[in-house]
Amino acid sequence: MSKRVKEILSWYSADNPGTLMNLARLLNHGRLGGTGKLVILPVDQGFEHGPARSFAKNPVGYDPRSHFELGIDAGCNAYAAPLGFLEAGAAEFAGDIPTILKLNNSDSLYSGSDPCPAITGSVDDALRLGCAGIGFTIYPASSARNQMYSQIRELAEEAKRKGLAVVVWSYPRGSGISKDGETAIDVAAYAAQIAAQLGAHVIKVKPPTELIEQDAARKVYEAEGIPIGTLAERVRHVVQSAFNGRRIVIFSGGAAKGREGVIEEITGIAEGGGFGSIIGRNSFQRPKTEAIDLLHEIMDIYAKHA
Amino acid sequence: MSKRVKEILSWYSADNPGTLMNLARLLNHGRLGGTGKLVILPVDQGFEHGPARSFAKNPVGYDPRSHFELGIDAGCNAYAAPLGFLEAGAAEFAGDIPTILKLNNSDSLYSGSDPCPAITGSVDDALRLGCAGIGFTIYPASSARNQMYSQIRELAEEAKRKGLAVVVWSYPRGSGISKDGETAIDVAAYAAQIAAQLGAHVIKVKPPTELIEQDAARKVYEAEGIPIGTLAERVRHVVQSAFNGRRIVIFSGGAAKGREGVIEEITGIAEGGGFGSIIGRNSFQRPKTEAIDLLHEIMDIYAKHA
Amino acid sequence: MSKRVKEILSWYSADNPGTLMNLARLLNHGRLGGTGKLVILPVDQGFEHGPARSFAKNPVGYDPRSHFELGIDAGCNAYAAPLGFLEAGAAEFAGDIPTILKLNNSDSLYSGSDPCPAITGSVDDALRLGCAGIGFTIYPASSARNQMYSQIRELAEEAKRKGLAVVVWSYPRGSGISKDGETAIDVAAYAAQIAAQLGAHVIKVKPPTELIEQDAARKVYEAEGIPIGTLAERVRHVVQSAFNGRRIVIFSGGAAKGREGVIEEITGIAEGGGFGSIIGRNSFQRPKTEAIDLLHEIMDIYAKHA
Amino acid sequence: MSKRVKEILSWYSADNPGTLMNLARLLNHGRLGGTGKLVILPVDQGFEHGPARSFAKNPVGYDPRSHFELGIDAGCNAYAAPLGFLEAGAAEFAGDIPTILKLNNSDSLYSGSDPCPAITGSVDDALRLGCAGIGFTIYPASSARNQMYSQIRELAEEAKRKGLAVVVWSYPRGSGISKDGETAIDVAAYAAQIAAQLGAHVIKVKPPTELIEQDAARKVYEAEGIPIGTLAERVRHVVQSAFNGRRIVIFSGGAAKGREGVIEEITGIAEGGGFGSIIGRNSFQRPKTEAIDLLHEIMDIYAKHA
Amino acid sequence: MSKRVKEILSWYSADNPGTLMNLARLLNHGRLGGTGKLVILPVDQGFEHGPARSFAKNPVGYDPRSHFELGIDAGCNAYAAPLGFLEAGAAEFAGDIPTILKLNNSDSLYSGSDPCPAITGSVDDALRLGCAGIGFTIYPASSARNQMYSQIRELAEEAKRKGLAVVVWSYPRGSGISKDGETAIDVAAYAAQIAAQLGAHVIKVKPPTELIEQDAARKVYEAEGIPIGTLAERVRHVVQSAFNGRRIVIFSGGAAKGREGVIEEITGIAEGGGFGSIIGRNSFQRPKTEAIDLLHEIMDIYAKHA
Repeated sequence: MSKRVKEILSWYSADNPGTLMNLARLLNHGRLGGTGKLVILPVDQGFEHGPARSFAKNPVGYDPRSHFELGIDAGCNAYAAPLGFLEAGAAEFAGDIPTILKLNNSDSLYSGSDPCPAITGSVDDALRLGCAGIGFTIYPASSARNQMYSQIRELAEEAKRKGLAVVVWSYPRGSGISKDGETAIDVAAYAAQIAAQLGAHVIKVKPPTELIEQDAARKVYEAEGIPIGTLAERVRHVVQSAFNGRRIVIFSGGAAKGREGVIEEITGIAEGGGFGSIIGRNSFQRPKTEAIDLLHEIMDIYAKHA
Repeated sequence: MSKRVKEILSWYSADNPGTLMNLARLLNHGRLGGTGKLVILPVDQGFEHGPARSFAKNPVGYDPRSHFELGIDAGCNAYAAPLGFLEAGAAEFAGDIPTILKLNNSDSLYSGSDPCPAITGSVDDALRLGCAGIGFTIYPASSARNQMYSQIRELAEEAKRKGLAVVVWSYPRGSGISKDGETAIDVAAYAAQIAAQLGAHVIKVKPPTELIEQDAARKVYEAEGIPIGTLAERVRHVVQSAFNGRRIVIFSGGAAKGREGVIEEITGIAEGGGFGSIIGRNSFQRPKTEAIDLLHEIMDIYAKHA
Repeated sequence: MSKRVKEILSWYSADNPGTLMNLARLLNHGRLGGTGKLVILPVDQGFEHGPARSFAKNPVGYDPRSHFELGIDAGCNAYAAPLGFLEAGAAEFAGDIPTILKLNNSDSLYSGSDPCPAITGSVDDALRLGCAGIGFTIYPASSARNQMYSQIRELAEEAKRKGLAVVVWSYPRGSGISKDGETAIDVAAYAAQIAAQLGAHVIKVKPPTELIEQDAARKVYEAEGIPIGTLAERVRHVVQSAFNGRRIVIFSGGAAKGREGVIEEITGIAEGGGFGSIIGRNSFQRPKTEAIDLLHEIMDIYAKHA
Repeated sequence: MSKRVKEILSWYSADNPGTLMNLARLLNHGRLGGTGKLVILPVDQGFEHGPARSFAKNPVGYDPRSHFELGIDAGCNAYAAPLGFLEAGAAEFAGDIPTILKLNNSDSLYSGSDPCPAITGSVDDALRLGCAGIGFTIYPASSARNQMYSQIRELAEEAKRKGLAVVVWSYPRGSGISKDGETAIDVAAYAAQIAAQLGAHVIKVKPPTELIEQDAARKVYEAEGIPIGTLAERVRHVVQSAFNGRRIVIFSGGAAKGREGVIEEITGIAEGGGFGSIIGRNSFQRPKTEAIDLLHEIMDIYAKHA
Repeated sequence: MSKRVKEILSWYSADNPGTLMNLARLLNHGRLGGTGKLVILPVDQGFEHGPARSFAKNPVGYDPRSHFELGIDAGCNAYAAPLGFLEAGAAEFAGDIPTILKLNNSDSLYSGSDPCPAITGSVDDALRLGCAGIGFTIYPASSARNQMYSQIRELAEEAKRKGLAVVVWSYPRGSGISKDGETAIDVAAYAAQIAAQLGAHVIKVKPPTELIEQDAARKVYEAEGIPIGTLAERVRHVVQSAFNGRRIVIFSGGAAKGREGVIEEITGIAEGGGFGSIIGRNSFQRPKTEAIDLLHEIMDIYAKHA
């Protein structure tokens, strides 16, 4: 095992060998294997946004096997999806790519101001599907946040006992903050801290903006002169906010956009010490070879900063 | 076992042999046995609409045995009903027709804007009654949707562990969408996707209309030119939305109507690649020989498209 | 065992021998033993209306032993009461009369528009007190109906597994219907159907009136010309609505009234094929010999129609 | 064992020997041991009203040991308190006085119109602390009453299974009745009945006033001429309402008051057939010798009516 | 073991040897070991206030190891933190300092008027991390208080069974009291009493002010002339309110402030018989040597009053 992966595993000294093994599976698989960097393919958009909005642009995506294949052929570290998508390929692609079972999901046929996803899978589902870890979304700033925190606490305790890794999507959203504040730098850093304190091994947040949402935080950012002018600086601050870099923090790719936009963002993340990216719509909504090209370019950027 | 049934079973490679056996029971029973098509008799209207509205037209239907007999004599693939109706015939007709225990139901003596059925049976009930599977209704677009998703998630996990098939009625309804939107094509396709992601083996939706309910979806349907002009095209899109056809999708017969209307609808569904129909009021509210005639005609249409 | 009791037991072919035995205990005990008819003594009014309103008129009723004695001396099929009343006599009168433990109750010190009783006993309580069955009240048309349906579903599953009979009081009440509608014929028939579908062995409803509450139902009653002009016709329709007579349906005696009124009502129920009555206030609020006289007269009417 | 205690135990024939033994411990301990009368020392005011309001007047009461000592030295039948107070002396005074663990409590830092105490102890706590029974407060007339009824039902079932006695404080309070109605005679009698039906072995109510709260009850009290003019008559009616005297009913001492007021009230209770009193603030807020004097005087009154 | 520690342990005679051992670990560790006084380092501000507000001033605090090191190097009795922070160092520093796992936490991205923290850890988490105890925050005066009381009751019962110590942060807050009332003397004394009655071994409250919040309490404070003019007097009253000093009561350090302010407050607490302090922001937001200096000065004050 590479020195860097050994170092990363050393941060998780409270975990049992089963969980360490699965964290190692995530870190050692694919083109970035051994570098300590990760590019993960997530496909929960069918549930979250609906099938046409997710797959019509590149209809091969309706077929659950296509995502396994994209993740494998592009050399991603892992593939993350809800129960149905994993059940539809877990046996066929067993051993070809580490998988992460998303244990909660929201759909868009009903929306409230304070989101709370439904539980859609279990730790035992993850085990029977051969997953390396579980995924879970929390929405800090939602009035329902405590329900989500309690759910992941319980699921994470079970997952750790059963030797799985715990990946937390920490997306502030709800009546506690403004719409723009969802990606404010103070909020993103706080979101990373909350996920870390809840016991996440891997934390996924959105690339933060220069905005500061909360007055009490603004005073400190100004008094201490925390640099947040560039994406790299902001990423560095978020990574620092996750136990001074001793937790794996990766960043979401966000809405589909042009290649240039993607690359620019990734460069900022990599320069700031981000551990990697989760690239969904920006990969599977492109034709496969184009998607693989882009994913490889992304991986190369991370490899350069490893 | 027929090649087609073997192919269908291959889509469910995450399931244990017990569940595969029960899926095979559903697919191999009756006049459509082995074709990969299904016509299922469901009788939960006594609970959902009341006894007189359901059975007065053809009073033999008050007797729970009559529905077993209709399903058997018509050569349906399965008979689905709530706890009481199955308890009233399960021993007498054991082995004559696969049964599906509906695990949740609503009645019409109280109605809210955001429906949520009551749990009315358990997986262990299904086992002790010799059922091949469980049935469960979700109402995406209801504010109570998460409760239903969590319930079926838990019940489906237990059913799969105990070797049963999972049939999900996915009927969008509630304050998240308009009344007409309940059968809109984007909504129906999304409903199929949600059920598939929740781990359903068999998905039941309503035949969709040409309407598009959600603005975000309309943009994609227009941009990608998804064909939705005919029922066959819409059915094809719904089936595609259920893992590119790798999940069994069947369609409800809807309100009682004339023979011609039924046949026309079934033809559209069959041409679009639908896997079959659930025919309730259009069968048991007719005199038995007339009902069997109609069911046979429906089965013949599906057989032709098998 | 009488041919009629054997026939009735044959309707419950999904039940285990323990439950069949307890159903037989109910059917074979007392003056109507073996006829397939039942007169049951229920005393939950102390909890539901308060002690003075229930027992002051005939103060021996304050003593829990008096109700056991009345049930035994009158030759009732069973005695049904809440936990406290059964605990206070179960040992002393063990073996003298089958008992039914009411597992939920409401009191009148607080009333809301949508009633939901409190759970006040368990299936294991029923076992330790030697009961033949459990009793449970549902209020269809209450906004809390789903909670009650889920509770009885779970309790009934446990009771059947442990060999007890399940008696359901099905009393529509709440914001879903009008006050008069609580005893409307369509509502009463629907209430019987719901209890039957929930798996009740014995169903208790109120004697229905000629009113039709729901518009959707009215259309059918008129179109099909369902006869509901006399109490006997209405009872026949309710019994039909409980699986075409293949579930035991008994009727409540309602508020205390004159002897003549009671007898007239019982005659209508018996002529309509009702399986019997639950007679509470009309028995225990009378002096004991008068009560026994009345109960015997009621039993004789049922015996004549057996 | 005295004849009277044997007689009382005979009323609890549904209970196992463990529970009977603990009831006997309560009845046989202290100066009133064997008489069938009880004076119990309860100290939950620290939790319910705060420490200064409870103990500042006689500061030795801050020390949890002082209450054990008062109960022992005064010859009370038992000492009842919340978890913390019992934990603080249970080992030191093991065997010196039967104890009752209060399993729910309210505090006064937040008050709503419809009270519902927090669960603050368990049956297993009572066992590990060597208690003779559990105590539980219900507030009939609160909108939260059903939650309390369900809780005590479950706790009482467990306590009886594990051989403990069940003591229920039945204090009507909440939006279902008026403030004065909390001690109205109809309400107090109803409160005793509810506790008895819920399976309480010992019932504690407040001394009732002449007021009748509910119209439906007033009609009966007037029609039947139930005597409620004196405290003794009202106590007799409440005791009758608890299974015709076949459940132990004791009365609370209420707010601290002059010696004369206490004695007058106790005399009325004793003359009406009350089984005893729970004397809290009127004992521990007095200097110890004065408290013991008063308690002895109270006990002597009860002894005279035994 | 010192006489004083033996004496303190004697107050917890209801606890099993495992819990006594862990209480002894807390009392015997560090510079104050054996004195019966405690200074504990708590770091949950990252979760409660966000990372920048907590750690930017002294950025080494982003690293979870720094807090273990500060606690160890300063000779604190224990280190208390949420799950993530303890997981990040529990193995590396195993045996170097007793730890307390905070089992519930609030964040500041959403705030309601009546706070209720999320459960963020379990008793089994505390065991697997080698902790000496669990920590839990209750907010008396919040409308959600009963939920918190029930949670700690259940967790405390489990913790005691498994041999851990129970530390309760009792911070009145919510719509039941005014903002200033949160630290009023009557409220603080009541908060200590509630925690003690709930079974806490160690109780943490805020240093109280001279304000009296509740009218009913004011009458007693005035009538009995309870001295509350100085901090020492108020601390003495709070300690008295926790079972007359037979429970360990420690005080929070509150918001970051100047050295002088800290020392003055500590002196008052020590003079009043307080058992120690929890010093968070006033330690880890200072440079390490300065923090250790301050902590040592604090410890010396307590040692002088031991």
